[in-house]
Amino acid sequence: MNFTIQKALIAVADRYITTDVQVINGKIAAISPNLDVIGMVVDGQNKLLLPGFVNAHTHSSEMWQRGIMSMLPLELWLAELYDFAPLDTEKVYLSALGTAVETLLSGGTSVVDHLVLIPGQELETIATAVRAYREVGIRAFIAPLIQDQSLTAGIPSGESKINHEPYFRSTLQTLEIIEAAVQEFHRPEEGVNILVAPTGIQLCSDALFTGCIELSDRYHLCRHSHLLETKAQKKLAQEKYGCTAVEHLHRLGYLSHLTSLAHCVWLTDADIAILAETQSTVVHNPLSNLRLGSGIAPILKYRQAGVNVSFGCDGASSNDSQDLLEAIKIGSILHNITDTDYQHWITPQESVIMASLGGAKGLNIGDQLGSLTMGKQADLVLYDLNNLSLLPRTDPIGLLVLGRPSNVVDSAWVNGKQVIANGNFTTINLDQLRQELFDRSEWETSRKSPTVAQIESSYRTVMGL
Amino acid sequence: MNFTIQKALIAVADRYITTDVQVINGKIAAISPNLDVIGMVVDGQNKLLLPGFVNAHTHSSEMWQRGIMSMLPLELWLAELYDFAPLDTEKVYLSALGTAVETLLSGGTSVVDHLVLIPGQELETIATAVRAYREVGIRAFIAPLIQDQSLTAGIPSGESKINHEPYFRSTLQTLEIIEAAVQEFHRPEEGVNILVAPTGIQLCSDALFTGCIELSDRYHLCRHSHLLETKAQKKLAQEKYGCTAVEHLHRLGYLSHLTSLAHCVWLTDADIAILAETQSTVVHNPLSNLRLGSGIAPILKYRQAGVNVSFGCDGASSNDSQDLLEAIKIGSILHNITDTDYQHWITPQESVIMASLGGAKGLNIGDQLGSLTMGKQADLVLYDLNNLSLLPRTDPIGLLVLGRPSNVVDSAWVNGKQVIANGNFTTINLDQLRQELFDRSEWETSRKSPTVAQIESSYRTVMGL
Repeated sequence: MNFTIQKALIAVADRYITTDVQVINGKIAAISPNLDVIGMVVDGQNKLLLPGFVNAHTHSSEMWQRGIMSMLPLELWLAELYDFAPLDTEKVYLSALGTAVETLLSGGTSVVDHLVLIPGQELETIATAVRAYREVGIRAFIAPLIQDQSLTAGIPSGESKINHEPYFRSTLQTLEIIEAAVQEFHRPEEGVNILVAPTGIQLCSDALFTGCIELSDRYHLCRHSHLLETKAQKKLAQEKYGCTAVEHLHRLGYLSHLTSLAHCVWLTDADIAILAETQSTVVHNPLSNLRLGSGIAPILKYRQAGVNVSFGCDGASSNDSQDLLEAIKIGSILHNITDTDYQHWITPQESVIMASLGGAKGLNIGDQLGSLTMGKQADLVLYDLNNLSLLPRTDPIGLLVLGRPSNVVDSAWVNGKQVIANGNFTTINLDQLRQELFDRSEWETSRKSPTVAQIESSYRTVMGL
Repeated sequence: MNFTIQKALIAVADRYITTDVQVINGKIAAISPNLDVIGMVVDGQNKLLLPGFVNAHTHSSEMWQRGIMSMLPLELWLAELYDFAPLDTEKVYLSALGTAVETLLSGGTSVVDHLVLIPGQELETIATAVRAYREVGIRAFIAPLIQDQSLTAGIPSGESKINHEPYFRSTLQTLEIIEAAVQEFHRPEEGVNILVAPTGIQLCSDALFTGCIELSDRYHLCRHSHLLETKAQKKLAQEKYGCTAVEHLHRLGYLSHLTSLAHCVWLTDADIAILAETQSTVVHNPLSNLRLGSGIAPILKYRQAGVNVSFGCDGASSNDSQDLLEAIKIGSILHNITDTDYQHWITPQESVIMASLGGAKGLNIGDQLGSLTMGKQADLVLYDLNNLSLLPRTDPIGLLVLGRPSNVVDSAWVNGKQVIANGNFTTINLDQLRQELFDRSEWETSRKSPTVAQIESSYRTVMGL
């Protein structure tokens, strides 16, 4: 579908101009004042046009436990999460819809879903997420979350030698599932992508990483993983490898321009140099890192080292929302307390570039997405600057990034297809989604996780608590 | 006006119950299931009832510069703020309305406005804010911001001796203005309070603090001030007093159960003990502290020492919103990275108590406000749990505090008077407010502050940058 946005504000260098934008066959065809109208006319007056952002790391099905998870560090939090995660594909479907909706309503046009798979229904889980994302119309990067070691292996053992239960599925079977998913669902030109995505060094063997590299090479797939989210994982890497996790992944060949790594809180300066050298991308999930007490990722250092950085919400059980503007705001201002020299602080204009072009680069499509550039895909968002949360009028991008905007997305397009118009979804029925989420849940009070009860004391000992 | 809320969810110890709540003559008269209907019926089904929160520190007129302020630390940021703050009373009126509206829409029923006064129109400024807050119907604590030293005195001088311009108004004149404001506007029973509020040790003489103590004693006024927001202020206190700012204020007699202190980022353990001993309240403004790079206030330490803590948004030029739920969320999870022992982390239930009862205690009205208790004033908020941002249903308070709720306030009452009904203001016309904010402002690009240019190099030298 073709359309012409008239008289929208766009940012150019250090100022704003009012301009028209033509979109033809899903691509930005022209950006200039007073263009001829092609296709539908969209009124851009008093609206800000930006490239869509990328929600560069989340786990959609965690939506079912948002608000209820105890205040725990990652390792114990994961135990609680899995104790209460009896998923079915209908729930996967609804939470993928919910994740896409909240991402789009906060300026995201792409989502990287590090998707938790239902054991024994792995391909069905992936098929369900694909269906949901196609329905909403968001650009989807589905990264099926895989591991080949059981949960307790992810906690450093300290002095003691512990034998862990074997994981229920073999490494080979897991890789076969991913390959089948690629063949069945990987359709980049239709906005559906499959990534290889071992959960991280804490629960994956070298064989799993190597198998993923091989799939990535063969099918040209992006690579995703968690990396050094917690201090415990830093300890664990030393126990497992006798070196840092980054050094180990580099030796395995996992790090590349195709690779995006969620969290990256506990890296050394030498690790940072490796990320820069390999052109890997850091996905910053500030809210999750705070909620789980993981720490502050050294984002200013990454930027100074030339490492590409993008933003993610992380799963809604560790955040507990999918509001990308919130992640961008906190992920920008949080770092001001890590460096007294304010000349290094991230400006709102830089935050927008990180969230859009940074996100696209992390998925190896920086040449096709992430900026208002002729010839790029029209993944666009138009913000209503008449909204109270964006008033009085000052710097539109400053208001958007540093304020607390709500209901500000007037229109959103993915690949030129309109997904939100006048603040409403054109693709799905939001009231129905709300009703289904309501009907399939109930208000709960505090729960007790049996696994936390079982592993807590050894965790406290190893972590010196 | 009397009313009965039927079948609302309320939190009781570690669970939720469905109950009715009767409000008679502005007070909570009964809380129990199946009460007789008195007055208007309010449908509380699928809604959460909480006591109203307190936005315990803000500067309303900063709303005019939100989104546009450069990324600078406090001392330079203040210089930019004042360079571009040509206020008039009409602007003061509109930004007070805007501040009240955003506070109410995020669960706040009280606001502490550390109000910037227009030079030469000090009483008119206060009268204007009083008028705005009475119109909206929020409970107002107006803390006229006073000082008796000029801006450059607030920056530590290091080795060099600097002579600062004298402040344009004498200490005595300033105190006379406050006394006149008290006589004219201080009407606690009508929801309008005046506080004594020297801006802080960085710009105030001992005589100003002492004069404020005297007014506080004579008229029974609460006391407010900024305290040790930045490392520069910590340095400055040592230069000025040869001791910490807290020790000095304690000697002056400023600290008491009537005193609330904004920020409190750079206190020593001995300082914290003084706050506890004097029953002073810390107002935590996490977003402003991040944005200005001030640091993380040691809130977990305050709680462990028994210091009362409440939440504030701070002025909208350093945040840049007045969304109290955002301040509560970030002000709760931020501290998880400061203490590896998760047993010290703030739970959502505790956050709600800090924001409501903690706020009331900080204003010396903990016995009249801040909890769902029979006999207390009916400052109440009813949240719509059917909102997408609060779904799926899990723990309602967890969703509210840790999520990113928007448009979730169904109803709000102040002193038993309904201010919001079905999500809409009953007291003012929001569209008109929006239009006036729009009309009196324009989109701006980056500005250059002449004062920043003047003082920046000496600031960088003193701070070792």
